[in-house]
Amino acid sequence: MIEDKNQQRTDLSQLGEFGLIDHLAKHFEVTQQSTIKAIGDDAAVMEFGDNRVVVSTDFLVEGVHFDLSYMPLKHLGYKAVVVNLSDVYAMNAEATQITVSIAVSNRFPLEAIEELYAGIETACKIYNVDLVGGDTTSSTSGLIISVTAIGQVKKGDEVYRSGAKPNDLLVVSGDIGGAYLGLQVLEREKEVFKVNPNSQPDLDAYTYIIERQLKPEARKDIVKLLQELEVKPTSMIDISDGLSSEILHLCKASKVGCDLYEDKLPLDPQVISTSEEFNMDSTTIALSGGEDYELLMTISQEDFPKIKANPNLTVIGFITDQASGAHLVTRGDQKIALTAQGWNSFDKD
Amino acid sequence: MIEDKNQQRTDLSQLGEFGLIDHLAKHFEVTQQSTIKAIGDDAAVMEFGDNRVVVSTDFLVEGVHFDLSYMPLKHLGYKAVVVNLSDVYAMNAEATQITVSIAVSNRFPLEAIEELYAGIETACKIYNVDLVGGDTTSSTSGLIISVTAIGQVKKGDEVYRSGAKPNDLLVVSGDIGGAYLGLQVLEREKEVFKVNPNSQPDLDAYTYIIERQLKPEARKDIVKLLQELEVKPTSMIDISDGLSSEILHLCKASKVGCDLYEDKLPLDPQVISTSEEFNMDSTTIALSGGEDYELLMTISQEDFPKIKANPNLTVIGFITDQASGAHLVTRGDQKIALTAQGWNSFDKD
Repeated sequence: MIEDKNQQRTDLSQLGEFGLIDHLAKHFEVTQQSTIKAIGDDAAVMEFGDNRVVVSTDFLVEGVHFDLSYMPLKHLGYKAVVVNLSDVYAMNAEATQITVSIAVSNRFPLEAIEELYAGIETACKIYNVDLVGGDTTSSTSGLIISVTAIGQVKKGDEVYRSGAKPNDLLVVSGDIGGAYLGLQVLEREKEVFKVNPNSQPDLDAYTYIIERQLKPEARKDIVKLLQELEVKPTSMIDISDGLSSEILHLCKASKVGCDLYEDKLPLDPQVISTSEEFNMDSTTIALSGGEDYELLMTISQEDFPKIKANPNLTVIGFITDQASGAHLVTRGDQKIALTAQGWNSFDKD
Repeated sequence: MIEDKNQQRTDLSQLGEFGLIDHLAKHFEVTQQSTIKAIGDDAAVMEFGDNRVVVSTDFLVEGVHFDLSYMPLKHLGYKAVVVNLSDVYAMNAEATQITVSIAVSNRFPLEAIEELYAGIETACKIYNVDLVGGDTTSSTSGLIISVTAIGQVKKGDEVYRSGAKPNDLLVVSGDIGGAYLGLQVLEREKEVFKVNPNSQPDLDAYTYIIERQLKPEARKDIVKLLQELEVKPTSMIDISDGLSSEILHLCKASKVGCDLYEDKLPLDPQVISTSEEFNMDSTTIALSGGEDYELLMTISQEDFPKIKANPNLTVIGFITDQASGAHLVTRGDQKIALTAQGWNSFDKD
């Protein structure tokens, strides 16, 4: 049936991942009273009794999302959990349980799978979540991991992508761009290793950014911090694909625009020095890098005094009306339209 | 790291799927108060407020779980949902939401994925569940589907595998063995088609069993029926791997034995006639076939009057103590030990 040459054939790459989800989701209606939020945020939200339960799920595919030649299986297990927990925290919820399913080819011995689960176990302990289920099956090629994270949040405390209002402040946790540059360093070392397997890489100058790539952390602490500061963000999303792409998701869902300030982007010194070494622009990396798993949020201006002294949170811009569009304000005070790939340097206004 | 020849190497096939899950799960502790039941049943059970939420997840891998040469994508989408809902119903719960993740290679055009989702949508409508999330990604080979089903059940109404008691009746819904025989017919037709692509198969004699394979249904109606009959099973499991294997799961979890009566096995006439045609023993097929997605349960003897007139439920045996073991009582009144593969004909007592 798929082989029928007369059928209409639209290549999946024409749509892209988000286009595909939107396209497929539009047929589906919500009928259950308990469904509060279906497709379109970091996690789904359901109401059972007085509790709101959030569920998020992700696939990690060998050769697409990870390369086992430099990603140890233990780190992979850890990361697979963390990227899902990050989606739960992005709803301002507490992560409580996960399920993990794996499809695995017979080139992996039991000891390899044990390594993977050792990483999963470490993540469960550190983030205090229970592994409650899953499925294991064989695959015809490679390793595929599917993780579903479950969390809970008090009714009314959940934060969606859609709540940002003009004049809200755009805030990001931690620093960004490190995970992407860590990957660049690892890929360079892989190439060096192919040429000379006896080379001993000196990675001391890159420890932070390599750890950002291999062992990212989800910002459970930020959800707790916001509670302590008594700040409820008006909108929130986690940074998995890159700051620019996430800002655009948030603006689209909230029907707003924004001004993002280049000179406010929080960059680690290793990100700046390694960008220079790779001859890359650190702003491009911060905007497009991805995999930082920091939280991007908007907060009401009146909450600014509560967060301004906090080293974990940086104000990087503010929300405007939708007609104004989403822009980067450069160090040279130019306004450039943001695009999912960072920004469009041909679209100056 | 995986390639290191000095490492200990245990082949995954030595453990099998259940052995692997048990092996991996034993390291994990439950720490969340909201976790009522983690790994080891058809679904996990969590408590949020006064509600119990159940979550079940399954992988379907092309070349392992399905063959697209005779499984239309729409049917595949439908089946992927149904097999997960079946796990929720096996907890005596109501299924309310699903998430669906797919990894797909670029040999699939958008139209193929739309077919798959059309099947998913049909299942959502028929079973009244909402699609609330998921992930789409590319795969290096083939199609992989991961479905997570979420359901709810009033506290105290949930039914585990572990509640069976000696003298309870062993009851099965519907009839069994059809899905496996349907697969045999489809595989035979595929071989015929390879030799003669112009052959026009006449499948009229096999409509029921082919539908059992291609479009299985989950027994939502049985959960409702049990409520109406005011019967709460003492234990329950869905039949995905074969009656014999599921009985052993149930006996192990409940620490009991059982006597299963060969002459009580509910078989459709098409199962009997097609078994004969394939020169296969219909009892073997009923015990080992799998994929019927019927519910296997135990009920207290005092509930027997409530179910005895019901055409959807068949008493097939009774529970004994653990020391007695799990046995098939044949038509010739022989007692044969049940094994996961059906029964062990060398182990008569």
